[in-house]
Amino acid sequence: MRSRICKLLRIQYPIIQGGMIWCSGWELASAVSNAGGLGVIGSGSMYPDILRNQIRKCKAATDKPFAVNVPLLYPDLDAHIAIIIEEKVPIVITSAGNPATYTPKFKEYGLTVMHVIANVKFAKKAESAGVDAVIAEGFEAGGHNGREETTTLCLIPLIKSQVEIPVIAAGGISGGAAMAAVLCLGAEGVQMGSRFAATYESSAHEGFKQEIVKASDGATSLTLKEITPIRLLKNSFYNKVQDAYARGASKEDLSLLLGRGRAKKGLFEGDLEEGELEIGQVSAQINRIISAKEVVEQTMNDCLAVLQKTQLAFKFE
Amino acid sequence: MRSRICKLLRIQYPIIQGGMIWCSGWELASAVSNAGGLGVIGSGSMYPDILRNQIRKCKAATDKPFAVNVPLLYPDLDAHIAIIIEEKVPIVITSAGNPATYTPKFKEYGLTVMHVIANVKFAKKAESAGVDAVIAEGFEAGGHNGREETTTLCLIPLIKSQVEIPVIAAGGISGGAAMAAVLCLGAEGVQMGSRFAATYESSAHEGFKQEIVKASDGATSLTLKEITPIRLLKNSFYNKVQDAYARGASKEDLSLLLGRGRAKKGLFEGDLEEGELEIGQVSAQINRIISAKEVVEQTMNDCLAVLQKTQLAFKFE
Repeated sequence: MRSRICKLLRIQYPIIQGGMIWCSGWELASAVSNAGGLGVIGSGSMYPDILRNQIRKCKAATDKPFAVNVPLLYPDLDAHIAIIIEEKVPIVITSAGNPATYTPKFKEYGLTVMHVIANVKFAKKAESAGVDAVIAEGFEAGGHNGREETTTLCLIPLIKSQVEIPVIAAGGISGGAAMAAVLCLGAEGVQMGSRFAATYESSAHEGFKQEIVKASDGATSLTLKEITPIRLLKNSFYNKVQDAYARGASKEDLSLLLGRGRAKKGLFEGDLEEGELEIGQVSAQINRIISAKEVVEQTMNDCLAVLQKTQLAFKFE
Repeated sequence: MRSRICKLLRIQYPIIQGGMIWCSGWELASAVSNAGGLGVIGSGSMYPDILRNQIRKCKAATDKPFAVNVPLLYPDLDAHIAIIIEEKVPIVITSAGNPATYTPKFKEYGLTVMHVIANVKFAKKAESAGVDAVIAEGFEAGGHNGREETTTLCLIPLIKSQVEIPVIAAGGISGGAAMAAVLCLGAEGVQMGSRFAATYESSAHEGFKQEIVKASDGATSLTLKEITPIRLLKNSFYNKVQDAYARGASKEDLSLLLGRGRAKKGLFEGDLEEGELEIGQVSAQINRIISAKEVVEQTMNDCLAVLQKTQLAFKFE
């Protein structure tokens, strides 16, 4: 496919797997890369030695490019960055921080850098910092999210109009129809998280994968905005957060209630009631666990078919 | 264009103008209908005698079909419904209520009925009630909004998969690229509100139209969820609502703060600080006041061009 993203990342299809804590280890990343997309190791849930191990396993499992996702708020950030450079990972995706801080270092070592943004201000900042592409993520996305609450449909054309570098759309995309939609908006590629979380190769707990399959519309909510806005499946933990709000809880109360390790508890250990079940609105459209390869292939096939079919409706009678 | 919506509504292009309080009187509705779309009189801000007058003026200004939008929570509802039937308005769009209550009556008099929904449950309910099409409106839309906060990108495929009747997409659409996007998602037509609010023919106050043009990303917020969720431009009134939340205001406090007539104050009288400025996220993409005819024509031209261009990217190299 003709896409600056394919050329930039040296991949066959402009499909990027979201780097998700507790879901995207080397098994998923290598499977996506082997299928022609870009696999991404989500380093946010890993200690440095685990990250190094995951990168090595990924390199052994694929000879195609893959990436590591690095939330710039991570406590072991310097160790992670050193490992990514030492292990010669070709592509890094940064998020949740200032793109100007680390982009020059990555570029010095020849890495391709993409940065996740949710508003025009940070898209321009990322471009100025020298990143190669931005991943524009809308309100419907799972996990951490922007404060402006701009949806993917509204965000992509805005970002596209303000930067020259390629824009990758994220949030609300689980297949070919949505890919066709965001390409029409000017995106040059897609990032999918929730869809890849519910694949065989995802390292998420089986119970969580089944929750994704069962989710219907209205099953998720963007909450904890006083700390960091995060989209979650509504469960017992979520209800406790709502009760806390009803009692007029302070930011400190909420942090205490959240505690530590809830994402691991939910996504990895399968505690569906007390865990933090990060997932996107698009979970309502995901009805089957399939392989990463099927995701990539079905998405590309459906995307082309949808574009052809939609254009056909324009034969004026 | 081949679209069930064009056939159903006897219009040339599947573009429906959102029925907006204080913005969409007969001038806008007739201009949209004359341009080949479906013009809509927003009855929510009108007393019965004003509505009758508006309908008559609209009939005098166009011989094409037009519609009246009826929020089913309106105090003068029965009077409005009687007038719509008496004046032989061909199409009615209902919202904010149970589609089963009035659809049979409208159908008895031969009207085409469309109902605005924001979730699967009400889409199915509307179909069972016999409506001819649903208008599925996403989180990014201006004014009153659903509680599930499902975005247009996520909502359209879901609704499409659950009903047989045509689905019209609303929320986040201001031109041809977004129209192409939602057609890819399975919508058979679009409803645009914010874009038509900022036209010459809109009856909104000139000051409000300029606010739409000036709006950037993050300029709106969905608030007052305890009363009825509503998307507004952030202004002094919005800040007062935020202050009330910070003080732990009750639903009653919020209702008192909201008071009566704030939408009129903002949208029609141009009080940009104390009025309720209902508008969608897509306002960030609206940079010029143009005519309703230009909206319709540019949207159709751009939609086709975007679909053709996007498909061209699929020539595999």
